[in-house]
Amino acid sequence: MKKVAVIMGSKSDLPVVAKAIKTLKSFGVPYEAHVMSAHRTPDASAEFSKNAKENGFGVIIAAAGKAAHLGGVLAAHTTLPVIGIPVKSSTLDGLDALLATVQMPSGIPVATVAIDGAENAALLAIQMLSLSDDALAQKLAEEKVKMNNNILSADNELQKEIESL
Amino acid sequence: MKKVAVIMGSKSDLPVVAKAIKTLKSFGVPYEAHVMSAHRTPDASAEFSKNAKENGFGVIIAAAGKAAHLGGVLAAHTTLPVIGIPVKSSTLDGLDALLATVQMPSGIPVATVAIDGAENAALLAIQMLSLSDDALAQKLAEEKVKMNNNILSADNELQKEIESL
Amino acid sequence: MKKVAVIMGSKSDLPVVAKAIKTLKSFGVPYEAHVMSAHRTPDASAEFSKNAKENGFGVIIAAAGKAAHLGGVLAAHTTLPVIGIPVKSSTLDGLDALLATVQMPSGIPVATVAIDGAENAALLAIQMLSLSDDALAQKLAEEKVKMNNNILSADNELQKEIESL
Amino acid sequence: MKKVAVIMGSKSDLPVVAKAIKTLKSFGVPYEAHVMSAHRTPDASAEFSKNAKENGFGVIIAAAGKAAHLGGVLAAHTTLPVIGIPVKSSTLDGLDALLATVQMPSGIPVATVAIDGAENAALLAIQMLSLSDDALAQKLAEEKVKMNNNILSADNELQKEIESL
Amino acid sequence: MKKVAVIMGSKSDLPVVAKAIKTLKSFGVPYEAHVMSAHRTPDASAEFSKNAKENGFGVIIAAAGKAAHLGGVLAAHTTLPVIGIPVKSSTLDGLDALLATVQMPSGIPVATVAIDGAENAALLAIQMLSLSDDALAQKLAEEKVKMNNNILSADNELQKEIESL
Amino acid sequence: MKKVAVIMGSKSDLPVVAKAIKTLKSFGVPYEAHVMSAHRTPDASAEFSKNAKENGFGVIIAAAGKAAHLGGVLAAHTTLPVIGIPVKSSTLDGLDALLATVQMPSGIPVATVAIDGAENAALLAIQMLSLSDDALAQKLAEEKVKMNNNILSADNELQKEIESL
Amino acid sequence: MKKVAVIMGSKSDLPVVAKAIKTLKSFGVPYEAHVMSAHRTPDASAEFSKNAKENGFGVIIAAAGKAAHLGGVLAAHTTLPVIGIPVKSSTLDGLDALLATVQMPSGIPVATVAIDGAENAALLAIQMLSLSDDALAQKLAEEKVKMNNNILSADNELQKEIESL
Amino acid sequence: MKKVAVIMGSKSDLPVVAKAIKTLKSFGVPYEAHVMSAHRTPDASAEFSKNAKENGFGVIIAAAGKAAHLGGVLAAHTTLPVIGIPVKSSTLDGLDALLATVQMPSGIPVATVAIDGAENAALLAIQMLSLSDDALAQKLAEEKVKMNNNILSADNELQKEIESL
Repeated sequence: MKKVAVIMGSKSDLPVVAKAIKTLKSFGVPYEAHVMSAHRTPDASAEFSKNAKENGFGVIIAAAGKAAHLGGVLAAHTTLPVIGIPVKSSTLDGLDALLATVQMPSGIPVATVAIDGAENAALLAIQMLSLSDDALAQKLAEEKVKMNNNILSADNELQKEIESL
Repeated sequence: MKKVAVIMGSKSDLPVVAKAIKTLKSFGVPYEAHVMSAHRTPDASAEFSKNAKENGFGVIIAAAGKAAHLGGVLAAHTTLPVIGIPVKSSTLDGLDALLATVQMPSGIPVATVAIDGAENAALLAIQMLSLSDDALAQKLAEEKVKMNNNILSADNELQKEIESL
Repeated sequence: MKKVAVIMGSKSDLPVVAKAIKTLKSFGVPYEAHVMSAHRTPDASAEFSKNAKENGFGVIIAAAGKAAHLGGVLAAHTTLPVIGIPVKSSTLDGLDALLATVQMPSGIPVATVAIDGAENAALLAIQMLSLSDDALAQKLAEEKVKMNNNILSADNELQKEIESL
Repeated sequence: MKKVAVIMGSKSDLPVVAKAIKTLKSFGVPYEAHVMSAHRTPDASAEFSKNAKENGFGVIIAAAGKAAHLGGVLAAHTTLPVIGIPVKSSTLDGLDALLATVQMPSGIPVATVAIDGAENAALLAIQMLSLSDDALAQKLAEEKVKMNNNILSADNELQKEIESL
Repeated sequence: MKKVAVIMGSKSDLPVVAKAIKTLKSFGVPYEAHVMSAHRTPDASAEFSKNAKENGFGVIIAAAGKAAHLGGVLAAHTTLPVIGIPVKSSTLDGLDALLATVQMPSGIPVATVAIDGAENAALLAIQMLSLSDDALAQKLAEEKVKMNNNILSADNELQKEIESL
Repeated sequence: MKKVAVIMGSKSDLPVVAKAIKTLKSFGVPYEAHVMSAHRTPDASAEFSKNAKENGFGVIIAAAGKAAHLGGVLAAHTTLPVIGIPVKSSTLDGLDALLATVQMPSGIPVATVAIDGAENAALLAIQMLSLSDDALAQKLAEEKVKMNNNILSADNELQKEIESL
Repeated sequence: MKKVAVIMGSKSDLPVVAKAIKTLKSFGVPYEAHVMSAHRTPDASAEFSKNAKENGFGVIIAAAGKAAHLGGVLAAHTTLPVIGIPVKSSTLDGLDALLATVQMPSGIPVATVAIDGAENAALLAIQMLSLSDDALAQKLAEEKVKMNNNILSADNELQKEIESL
Repeated sequence: MKKVAVIMGSKSDLPVVAKAIKTLKSFGVPYEAHVMSAHRTPDASAEFSKNAKENGFGVIIAAAGKAAHLGGVLAAHTTLPVIGIPVKSSTLDGLDALLATVQMPSGIPVATVAIDGAENAALLAIQMLSLSDDALAQKLAEEKVKMNNNILSADNELQKEIESL
C-alpha cells in the first residue's frame, strides 16, 4: 500500500496531528511523520515533495498554523493529493490558517479539512487510498457503522441523563 | 476509469461549476453532473451517495452556497472521498459556504477547496484517481509543466508592459 | 399537546441543550430528547423527521456545532417548524455553527436563535405551540412579568452595590 | 386564520420584504404589512406589538438592517413568535443586521432567518400557523413536492447544457 | 450640574460598568445607575428615557451585550446624547454588541465606545457636560496631564526592567 | 454658539461627510470643515486640536477610512468631545476604519457612529451642544417628530404598493 | 544603488502592482519586475530569492492574492527584507491575502502593507534603502512636504465646495 | 551602527515586546526602548519621531493594541522605516490592532508583522540594517542555518515520540 506522509510545520503541532497518526495506525495504513517547515526548511520541504511519489507515498497531509503555507508549498512540487490541516494558534482562532490553507489559486489544490481536524485528514487520505484498495474501503464502511452505533448508544445514555435535569 | 460525480445544489451554480466539468473533460475523465439539493431533494441525494460507489463513481464533488450542507450530506452516506466547493452567494462573500463546508465534525471529512474553486476541485479529484492510474498522473505532471511555462511567458510579456508604465 | 423534539448532534452538546429541556419541563410541555447526527446517523435523522408530525411532534429543536447541518437536514424532511441552536465549539466561537444554521436557502427555513441560546429555542417552541393553546400563552405572559420583576429586583440590589464602588 | 404581521424598519426594505408578502399571498394567509421603526416610531412599534395578539395576529415578521433592533423590540412586548429578517445594507454585507437580530438574550427569542431571507420568513410563519391548520400543512407539503420536482427538472435541463461546455 | 444616567442591560454587566461609575465619582459628576432592559423591561426603559431630560439628566450611558439594543432603544425616546458601551459576552468577543450598538440608522445616533470601554464612556459624558462647565473642563485637562505623567513614569520604570531581559 | 469642526482625512471623503455638513447647516449650527490628515499633516492636526477649544469649537467630528487614526489623534490633544465617522474604503467594507476608530484605549474616547454615518455624527454633535442650548434641544425634538411622521407617511404609501405585489 | 525586486504572483496583479513600479521609477530607484508564483514556479521563485542578494537586490516586494504564500516563500530563502502586498481577489475582500501574508511564524518576517497598498510597499522599500543613502532620504523628506502641501491645497478647495452644499 | 527604537504604547505590552528586545540584544544591535503613547503622550511621540534620524536611529518598532495608532503616528513624522507590532488585547484577538496598524493610507507605510510578532519585528529591523552591514547580514544567514537545524532536530525527536502514540 502507498504510504501517507504526515508533515507538520512545527513539533508543537503534534498534539493536534497525533489524532491523524493514530487514525492511520488504527487502519493499518503505512505512514511517515516529519517536522518540516515551508519557511525554515524550504529546500527540504521541496525535496521531500518532489520525491514523495517515487518514495512510495500516495497522499501528503500538511498541518500548519498562522500563515499556513506548508500545504501549498508541498502541493507546488507534486501531483499527489495534498491534504491541509489548519492549526489553531494563539490568535485569530485558526481563521488565518484556514484561509491560508484553503484559498489556493487555480492549478494547485489543497484539500482542506476543519481547523485542527486531524482525524478527518487521516480519514480523507484513507478514502483516497481505498479507491484502489477494497479491503481498506471495507474497513471504512465498518467504521461508519461503528460511528452510527456510537450515536445510538449515546442516545440511550441520554435518556437516563435527562431524567435528572 | 472510475467516474467523478459533480453535484451542484442549484442550477444557478453552473457558471462556477462549469470550470470543474471543463477540467474533467480536458483530462478525459468520465463524469456525471447533477443538480441535487441537500434540502430540496434530500432523499435523492442520499440515494445517489449510497449507490455512488456501486455505480462506478470514485469521487464526488459537491458545490453549494450559503449554509452549504450538500458536501456533508453526501459524505454522510458514502466512503468515497467528497470534495466540497463553497460557492459565493449574494451575501457574506462565500464565508458562510466555506465554514459550512469545511468545519465538518470528526468522522466525516469533506475535502474543501477555495471559494468558487471549481477547477481545483476537479484537479483534486483527478489527483485522487491518478493514485492508481499512471497515465492520468502523467497528464497531471504535464499540466504542471504547462502552468510553469505559462508563468514564464507571462513574465516575458510583463517586461514589455512595464516599460510603458 | 404536541411534543417538542430536542435533537442534539452529539451528546457533548447536552450542557448547552439542557437549558432547553429544563425550560420545556418548567412549562409542562411534553418533549423527547435525542442524540442524532446529520452525518453519523443520517438515515435515522431523516426517518425521525419524516415521521415527526405523525408521531405527535409539533416543533423540532436541533442543536449542533461547527458545520452545523442538523437543523437543515431535519427541516428538509418535514413541514414542521425547525429551530436551530448553533453550538459554540473549540474554534471560531460558534460563528461557523451560526452561519451553517441560519443561512438556509429559500424554501427550507431554520428558525435560528443565538449561539448556545438553548433557553430561547425552548421559549420559541412554546410560543409556537401557544398559538393554539391559550393556557400556554398565559404561562408565557406570566413568565414575561416575572422577567420584568427580576430586573426591578436587580435594580434594587444594584443601588446597594454601587455605594461601595 | 390568524394574521401575519410583516413589519419593515424602512420602506426601502420593501424589495427584500416583498418576497415574504408574495409567499403569504400565494398560501392565502392573511397579513398586514407596515413600516414601523424601533428607533423612529418606538411607541407605535411597542403599541402594535402589545396589541398584536388581541388584534388577530399569530406571528410577527420583522425586517431591518444595520443595528437591526426591530425584531427584539417587537418581541419585548408580545408572547407571539417573532421572526427576524436581517437586511443587507450598504456596508458589512448584512453581518451587522444578522448579529443584531439573532444574538438575543435569554427570555426574548427572535427566530432568525438568513440575511435577506424574506421567503423563508414567510414559510416559517406559515409552518407555525399550520400547527393548528391541517389545510395549511397540506399546502406546505405540496410546495415541498414542487420544490423537489423543480430540482428534478433543473437536473434534466442541466444534462443538455453541459454537453455544450 | 446635570446628572449622568448609567444604564446596564443586566446586573451581570456591573463588573464592566463599575469603571464608568468610579470615573464619574472621581470627577464629582452626579449620576444614577440602573439595571434596565430593552427586552425585559421595555416600558420602564422607554419611560426612563422619555423623562430623562426633565428629570435632570444630561447624558445617558447604556451598556449591553450580545444583540445590544439598549442604547438604540433609549436613544429612540430622547434628544439627550446616548453613549453605548458594547459588553463582551460569552461568544463572538463583543463583536455582536459592537455592531448592534454602533450601526444605528440615520436619525438616532448612539455614541459608541470600545468593547467594555466603560471608563471612556464616562469620560465622554464628562466631556459633553464640560462644554458648559469650565471647572469640569479644567479637571479633564488636569487628568490629561496626569495620564501624560503616568506614561513618563512607566517609561522610567521600563528602563530598569529591560536591563534584566 | 460653539462651532463644530468637521475634519476629514482626505477630500475624497467629502461625499460621505457632506451629510454631516448639510445637517449642521439645516440646524443653523456654526461649523468649519477642513481636510486634515493624521498622517500627512500631523502637526497641523495636532495644532488645530490643541487650539480648538480656544478657537470657539465645542465638538470635533473626524471622518477617516482604512487605519482611521484621525479621531484618536485629534482626541489626544483636546478635552472636547471628538466624534469619529469610520469611512468605508475600497476593501474590508469599513470594518478596518470602524475598529481603528472605536477601539480607543482608556483615557481617550472617540464617540463613534456607524460606518459612513455622517448625518448621525452631526446629530450627535448637536445633541451635545443642546445640553446648554434649549432652542437647539427644541429643534431636535421637532426633528424627531418629523422622523416619526415620515415613517407614518411611508406606511401609508406602503399600503398602496403592496396591493400590486 | 541596490535594486528592488517587484514580484507578483500573477500578471493579473499588475494593475495593483503598477503603483509600486511607478513610485520606484519616480524616485529613480532601480528595480526589476517579474511574474513568479510560489505554487506554479516554486523552483524559479526559490532560486530567484536565494540569489537575490548576490544579484544586486536590496529589497524584495511580493504581491499575491488569496492564500498569498509568495512573500513567505521568498522570505524563506533570503536574509533580505521582504515586503508583502496582499492583493484583493474576487472573494473575501483581501482578508485571506492579508492574513496569509502577515501572520508569519517567528523567524521569517514579511513586512506587510495594506491590502492593495502597492505605493506604500515601494515607499517602504525606498525607506529601507535610504538608511544608507542620504540623497534618497532627502527625496523622501521632500515627498513628505509635498504630501503635506497637497492636503493644504485640498483644504483650500474644500472651502469652495462646501459653500454649495 | 544605527540604533533601533522599540516603542510600546503601554508598559503592559512589555511581555510581548520583550522578545523584540531580546532578539536585538542577541544580534548585538543597539536599541532604546520606550513607553510612549500616540494618545496619552502625543507630543513626546511626535518629537521622538521627528528627531529619531538625527538621534542615531535607523528603524522604529512600534507595538500597540486595540485602535493601534502608534505606528502610524510615528511614521507620520519620519522618513525612517516604521515596523508595527499589533498587540492582542482583551477583545477581538488582535484583529483590531492588526487592521489599525496595517491598513495605512498611501504615503505613510507601516511595515506590519504578525499579531504579537515581536521577534519578527526585530528580525525585520535587523534585515533593514544589514543592507549596509555585511557582518549583520552574515549573522542573519547563520541564524537561518540554526533555524533549519532546529527543525531537523525536532524531526529526529518526533520519530521517537510517534512510536508511543
